[in-house]
Parts: sequence; C-alpha cells; structure tokens
Amino acid sequence: MTTPTRGFNDAEFAARCTHAQAAMARADVGALLLTSEAEIRYFTGFMTQFWQSPTRPWFVVIPSSGKPVAVIPSIGAPLMRQCYTENIISWASPAADDDGITLVADVIRQHVAKGGSLGMLMGRETAVRMPLADLFALQKALGAINLHDMTADIQQIRTVKSPAEQAKLRHICGIVSDVFAHVPDWLQAGMPFDSCFRRFKIDALERGVDDVSYLVGGVGAGGYDDIIGPPFAKALATGDVLMFDTGCIWDGYFSDFDRNFSIGPASAEAQDAHKKLFDATEAALSILRPGITAADLFAAMDDILRPDPSSSGDDVGRYGHGLGIQLTETPSHTAWDKTEITAGMALTIEPSISYGNGFMMVAEENLLVHDDHVELLTTRAPRDLPVI
Amino acid sequence: MTTPTRGFNDAEFAARCTHAQAAMARADVGALLLTSEAEIRYFTGFMTQFWQSPTRPWFVVIPSSGKPVAVIPSIGAPLMRQCYTENIISWASPAADDDGITLVADVIRQHVAKGGSLGMLMGRETAVRMPLADLFALQKALGAINLHDMTADIQQIRTVKSPAEQAKLRHICGIVSDVFAHVPDWLQAGMPFDSCFRRFKIDALERGVDDVSYLVGGVGAGGYDDIIGPPFAKALATGDVLMFDTGCIWDGYFSDFDRNFSIGPASAEAQDAHKKLFDATEAALSILRPGITAADLFAAMDDILRPDPSSSGDDVGRYGHGLGIQLTETPSHTAWDKTEITAGMALTIEPSISYGNGFMMVAEENLLVHDDHVELLTTRAPRDLPVI
Repeated sequence: MTTPTRGFNDAEFAARCTHAQAAMARADVGALLLTSEAEIRYFTGFMTQFWQSPTRPWFVVIPSSGKPVAVIPSIGAPLMRQCYTENIISWASPAADDDGITLVADVIRQHVAKGGSLGMLMGRETAVRMPLADLFALQKALGAINLHDMTADIQQIRTVKSPAEQAKLRHICGIVSDVFAHVPDWLQAGMPFDSCFRRFKIDALERGVDDVSYLVGGVGAGGYDDIIGPPFAKALATGDVLMFDTGCIWDGYFSDFDRNFSIGPASAEAQDAHKKLFDATEAALSILRPGITAADLFAAMDDILRPDPSSSGDDVGRYGHGLGIQLTETPSHTAWDKTEITAGMALTIEPSISYGNGFMMVAEENLLVHDDHVELLTTRAPRDLPVI
Repeated sequence: MTTPTRGFNDAEFAARCTHAQAAMARADVGALLLTSEAEIRYFTGFMTQFWQSPTRPWFVVIPSSGKPVAVIPSIGAPLMRQCYTENIISWASPAADDDGITLVADVIRQHVAKGGSLGMLMGRETAVRMPLADLFALQKALGAINLHDMTADIQQIRTVKSPAEQAKLRHICGIVSDVFAHVPDWLQAGMPFDSCFRRFKIDALERGVDDVSYLVGGVGAGGYDDIIGPPFAKALATGDVLMFDTGCIWDGYFSDFDRNFSIGPASAEAQDAHKKLFDATEAALSILRPGITAADLFAAMDDILRPDPSSSGDDVGRYGHGLGIQLTETPSHTAWDKTEITAGMALTIEPSISYGNGFMMVAEENLLVHDDHVELLTTRAPRDLPVI
C-alpha cells in the first residue's frame, strides 16, 4: 500500500473556495460565515482535535473572491498561519465579554452591504457552533443583513471528492479492511467485549490509522439490538453474535464500516439476516452509477430487506450515507433523498435488518463512484456470517 | 490501582436532575431543553461516540420534576432504554421534513404553559446542536413561550464532581501519569514525531485508557510555537524541545495534561521557561482552597509569568479550566472569571509562557479540590525540563 501525501496543495483549497464563491454569486451572497469544524477544515485546512474544547468560538468568513478570512482565538493563530487564509484576526479568548462577535461582525460588514445577504449553514446536518446568545448578538450587530441558508450548496460541493481526497479515503479504508481481516486471529470466546475494543484500537493504530475516532459495537446470545453503544465487560461466549463498527481516520479522512462475527455456529435466523444484508448490498452495488439517486439505492435495498415495510421493527432511518472528513456526510440513502449520485462521491452502503426476538443486524461497505465504475474501498464482507 | 465501577447508579442521576430542577424552580422555568452531547450524557447517562455523526438531532427535556424525557432518533432508543429517562419518544431519523421538531415541541408544551419559560443553554461554552432553521421552526411552533438562559446554573452544577465522578477522574489521570512516566523509555532522537504520537496512543490503550480522544503536541529546535496542532513527520533531533498534550478518557471522564521534554540539553531560555511554569503552578497550588476564585488562580500565576503583561506575546486566554466529561469545562482561570472555587471541583492548572524567538511553552496539572486539601491527580512535573 502506497501512503498518500498528507495535506493538500493550495490549488485544492482554491478550487473549493471558488466552488463556494460561485454558489454565493448565484445567491447574491456577499460572504459566507462558517463556525464549525468540518467546514472550517474543508475550506482552510485547519485541522486540530482542539475542537473538543467547547470554550472558544471559531469563525471563518469566505468573501466573494479571494482566500478565507479567519477570526479566531489567538491560541489557534500559529496553526492557522499554515492554512489557506488571506488574513487572520485573533483575540485572547475566552474573553470577559464580546468573545469575537464585534471582530467577526466587522469582517462581515466589509463584505456584505446593508440590505445584503450573509450566507450561513442552517439546514440538515449542520449546527451553528457558537453560543446562541452570541448568535443573537451577532444578528443585532449586523442589523439590516439577511441570513441566507447555503447548506445545500456547500454540501453538494463537499460530496464530490478530489483525487487527493479519494487517495486518503482509499488509504484509510484499506488499512481498516486489514484490521478486520485479522480479527479472527485474536478474537475468541472468553474475552471481555471491552478488551476486544481495546485490542481492535491497538491493532488499527499499529497498522497505520491516525485515530480510532469511532468504535462501537453490539454483542449478545443470538444477536445484538444496540448498534451505537460503548462496550461492556461481558465475556464473549459461544453462541454470541457480535459486530464492530468503526470510523478510523487517516489525515482527517474517515473510513466507516462494520463487520459481524459469530462465536461458534450462529442461529439460522442470524445466518439468514447476514445473507439478506449481503444481498441488499449487492442490489445497491448493481445499480450504482452516476445519474441514479440516493433514494434509488434505498429502494434497491429495501425491496430485499423489507418486502413488507409495515411489518418491520426499529428503523435506523437510512441505508447509508456520504463519507469524507466526517463520519457521516450527505446524502442519505432514504426514500426521500433525491440527491443525484455523481462521479467523485464517496458513499457507504449500509443496510440494516431486524430479526428474531428484537435483534438488529447491520452491514456496511465504503466505495467511490467513478464515471464508468464503482470502486469498493473495503474488502467485501462475505455472504456467510463469519464464524470464530 | 483499583479500577472504579463503570456507570452511575440512578441516585446519582436523580441528584443531578434535582439540582437542575431546583434552579428551574428558582427561575420559574417549566422545562429545560438539552441538545448537546455533554449535557444529555450528564443528566441521562447516554454515552456514545455516535455524536460524531452530524446527521440526526437529539433532544432531552427535563421537566420540573421527575426523570428526563428523551425525544431521539430510533437508532438510539435501545441505548437510551438503559439510561435515566422517564419516557423515550423516537422517530425514524433522518426524516424528510420535521426531523423531531413537532415531537419535541409537543413534549415542551406539556410542561411549559403559554407565556411560560423554556430553559436552554445559550451562554459561554455552549452551542445548540440542531440546524438553525429547525431551531427557528421550534421557536415558531412554541409560540408564546420564552427562552430562558440556564447556562450558569447548569455549569455550576456540573463543576462539583460527586465521589463517583472523582473516582473516574482519579483513575484516568493515574493511568496517563504512568504513560508520561514511561515516555523517556521509548522516545529518542530520530523518531518521526507522528510515530511518537502513534506510540503514545498505543501505550495509553495498553495501560487502560478507553480512548486517546485528544493528543496534540509541538516540537522544534529550541522550542515550539503551536500547541494545538497534529503531528508531522519531522524526525526528532538533538536540541528539540517537544510537548505532548493529551486528553484521555476512562468511562467518559477526561484527563487533560501535558509534559515537556528536551532531546539532549536544552537552551537556557527553555530551561528557564520550564522552571517559571513550575513556579507558577506552585503559586496557584499554594493558594488553592474553597472560597478563592478562578481569577485569584490566574493572578497568582500571572504575577510570575508576566511581571510586565504589556510585554507578552501571544495570549492563550487563560491558565487552566474545569475538567470532567469534556476536555475543558468551566470555570476559566482568567482575570475576569470570578467563579468561586468550591470543594468537589476538578480543575487544571495550566500556565503558559512565551520565550525566545516566538516560542511558547505550556505545563498542566489536574487536581481535585477538597474541603481541607487539594488532591493532585497527576504526578507532578519536575521543575527542571526533562532531558531525553
């Protein structure tokens, strides 16, 4: 496996900003205000785990042309100076009052005239990462400036991955495929489930992931019902069906897939569920090409998983999603998401099924959509539930 | 080291809710709406890394008495059923329209009369984790209900750690102290800095942390200037001064501290900076007791670090903070934070100093405040900069 180059060149960020600025021009938006980790990283390259500290707000303003302007706490200025920005305005944060609000309002007013529009992300999958009271104060400071929702534009830009982004996704999914391939080497009855998590994380780090940002799983005799919880100390026993679902990171790009295992022979129901998930994935892969929609992928899978949808139990809401610098990105493979699939998209295919006495099973693959083919990034799970 | 029990009993959550409900009664607030990870976990015990997916909103409503009500995507219902809740209302999310807004508005209206007040977190260190457009829709659906900011009340409740919380903090800080103690066993000139990060993470996992959620660092000849960035592949060389700063987690509770090292003898300036940081920490520890304020801690450190504040360079904004289920919690050791230090608080003491040609150095310790003494949770860094 060849390791890709870390980071991106300036041309990559310039292209991203140009795409955003074209959408801004179409909407007559003078500036776009970003407050959250993924968007600020996407447009500037500012990458830090420091976002876990909720103390300080961070602002990036994309003007109608040129590089982004950062209005950030001074603790982040040295890192931001290495990023794609025109100008960095910083202050000692946390501040007693006015934690950056006047500064960011000034920058916005330089780019948006009275009566003009400020772009923001206000829609699905977004959240404004600043105190609500400060947002109200900013609105007041901006006076006669309208807020314009640019969620759809920005999400559409982000769904199409550049060759450099694709290389990072290919790399992380390849490493994690190896991690899963070696799980049967060490997993065995008697191991506490939380020790399995720790072992999985160490193995992933040794094989080259930067971080195991997300590792959840389920286990139980005959199956599991929870697919997002932390592990508990229960020792694995013969008859258990278990699942690891992991989002690992390399240079800020996520894999997101899971694998199921049975400790000793599984019930017929569990075996059948695993085959149905495989077949649903095949059905999605068989139709996947530019021009179909996320809803088409949902329908292809749902036909196999829920011939009678009214009889189903829990509903996880979708059968997969976009993938990139967040564990999950748009679109969502649901009955209602008519997003057109285009070349360059990174997607998960993630069918789920209820079976037996309240059990749930999930399966997931990661892939890239190209003009003329689909590139699986993950080593395809087998149709038969693997037995340890 | 004895490993504490994972999780909390219901009495712990009942006490947390009772404290919140007392504050709500004082403010004449009929219900408190929570949308973000830390607060939902604090009051219900709902713990999952699934928050990394931005797709779905999550709501918890604390009524004026009784257990919290969860209004959440069905994918989280099995995990929430194990938590401290009275009632779980769920829906298949992501939904085409109305992603939980009508459901949560209905619950709020059951507890808040027309003209009454809904508590929310709107202040420093908070953010409403839902799309802004949905927040506006919720405000509209609630009609004549006022939003009342309860940030100060909730943060005050969270600053005081119960004995069970203290045990978790003690445990994680003990493990990470061991990890740092063994860094000189493996760190050496020639190692790429990113390999050091990977090695640090593996060692921490092997010693018992659940996750290395946060690991940042700085390195350079004579010193470093960035304290929040990811590692790069630069090989460590004689004359480098480097720093690891890590937030590790055990059962959802964070350590947050750093350590500095020099590869070979350090410059006199770097040695002096390290001693000043030690002395500033001593000054803070010497006055630390219930009844002083966070600002007193700042002043004690600043007297040593910046005898002439006007001459200083970059300002990271504070010299430490609260610690718990987030990497950083309130209060902030700043000139303006007059929060009274009370028994039960978990705090970091985190002085920083500029020196030489644009270098920065940080040092950090974690501790618990008791009625009659301060309990260091970290093995105290030495006064002399450790030389590898």
